[in-house]
Amino acid sequence: MRLFNYFRSSSSYRVRIACNLKGLAYEYLPVHLNRNGGEQFGDRFTTLNPQQLVPLLEDGDTRIAQSLAMLEYLDERYPDVPLLPRDPAARAQVRQTALYIACEMHPLNNLRVLKFLTGELGLSDAQKQRWIVHWLETGLTALDTQLRDAPGRGAFCFGDTPTLADCCLVPQLFNARRFGVDVSAYPTLHAVDQVCEQIEAFRRAHPSCQPDAE
Amino acid sequence: MRLFNYFRSSSSYRVRIACNLKGLAYEYLPVHLNRNGGEQFGDRFTTLNPQQLVPLLEDGDTRIAQSLAMLEYLDERYPDVPLLPRDPAARAQVRQTALYIACEMHPLNNLRVLKFLTGELGLSDAQKQRWIVHWLETGLTALDTQLRDAPGRGAFCFGDTPTLADCCLVPQLFNARRFGVDVSAYPTLHAVDQVCEQIEAFRRAHPSCQPDAE
Repeated sequence: MRLFNYFRSSSSYRVRIACNLKGLAYEYLPVHLNRNGGEQFGDRFTTLNPQQLVPLLEDGDTRIAQSLAMLEYLDERYPDVPLLPRDPAARAQVRQTALYIACEMHPLNNLRVLKFLTGELGLSDAQKQRWIVHWLETGLTALDTQLRDAPGRGAFCFGDTPTLADCCLVPQLFNARRFGVDVSAYPTLHAVDQVCEQIEAFRRAHPSCQPDAE
Repeated sequence: MRLFNYFRSSSSYRVRIACNLKGLAYEYLPVHLNRNGGEQFGDRFTTLNPQQLVPLLEDGDTRIAQSLAMLEYLDERYPDVPLLPRDPAARAQVRQTALYIACEMHPLNNLRVLKFLTGELGLSDAQKQRWIVHWLETGLTALDTQLRDAPGRGAFCFGDTPTLADCCLVPQLFNARRFGVDVSAYPTLHAVDQVCEQIEAFRRAHPSCQPDAE
């Protein structure tokens, strides 16, 4: 398996966690999002992925864009160490959490979006920071409330083993800290994060442990 | 089944298409995103969905936020008229398309995001329009390129029956037209849209046919 990757990309981080949890080895292929005008926009990478985003996963002849499509694929193709429960209603609870992070939080503070705001639209650094923190705080508040009251809660977001929700939550909290948000203000999320931190599969996926870390 | 809904919300539109394709009846519960400061922010709706977003699906005791979590749930719980192929690699191709729309396109031009840009950050209407069109054109170009070359193409995005990808594409093209983008400039997407337009399940899900349409 080959994973086109960027150490700090939180969607890349999700897939690294899932591979580690499942014990799947992969070749790490760095794509530098800030060098040479962004290597993801180069002809070579664009041919592989017209979406021009990392991560990109190759498993034999199968090439997959979008981190959540990868996580679902890995769970279907390598079902040992499942990352989703079996019951459709329980699966939906996990997915609504993962998707809230992937759809409503991460894309708004993505590198390409921040660059457009300050470059093309001329926002100041202070306005950019206000934008970032607004969406982080809105998102973390919603997630913390929803998880606190979730019927399936355990040591992890849902139950006592990691799921897609934890694979998305931990990178999102890393991202929030990077932008100065105090994650301990969200007690439910913070507790899950501390449990995940004890697990080797999560620790090895951390941006600081990757070959292209700066 | 009960679907909390807004006629023009493209994520609501996705779920209406899926229910119609599967022949599942639902009660339509309108949530007006622009009235009374946004009914999705009211106490009543926030208790049901702390994410404060439509759609929200209730099926008996199961309550689900996030449209793609609903589509996956409906496909698992009501597997007649499947919306995903069976092979994991083929499923991943469908999901990478649906997720590109749900993660990289729709959230950026969401009502709450546009309101923050013009309200809190003081962007002009011209700047707002530039932002909207930039992400629509970037996204439609990537999608058209990726789908044109996809091995599984048929009359629909993938194969000869509708999938999650079509449930997401048709509402996204409706949204693009609303903002003045010429969708016929994307021939692969446009062809799929025209096929879907012939199908009753898609037509009945159109915003103009909903009880809260303005």
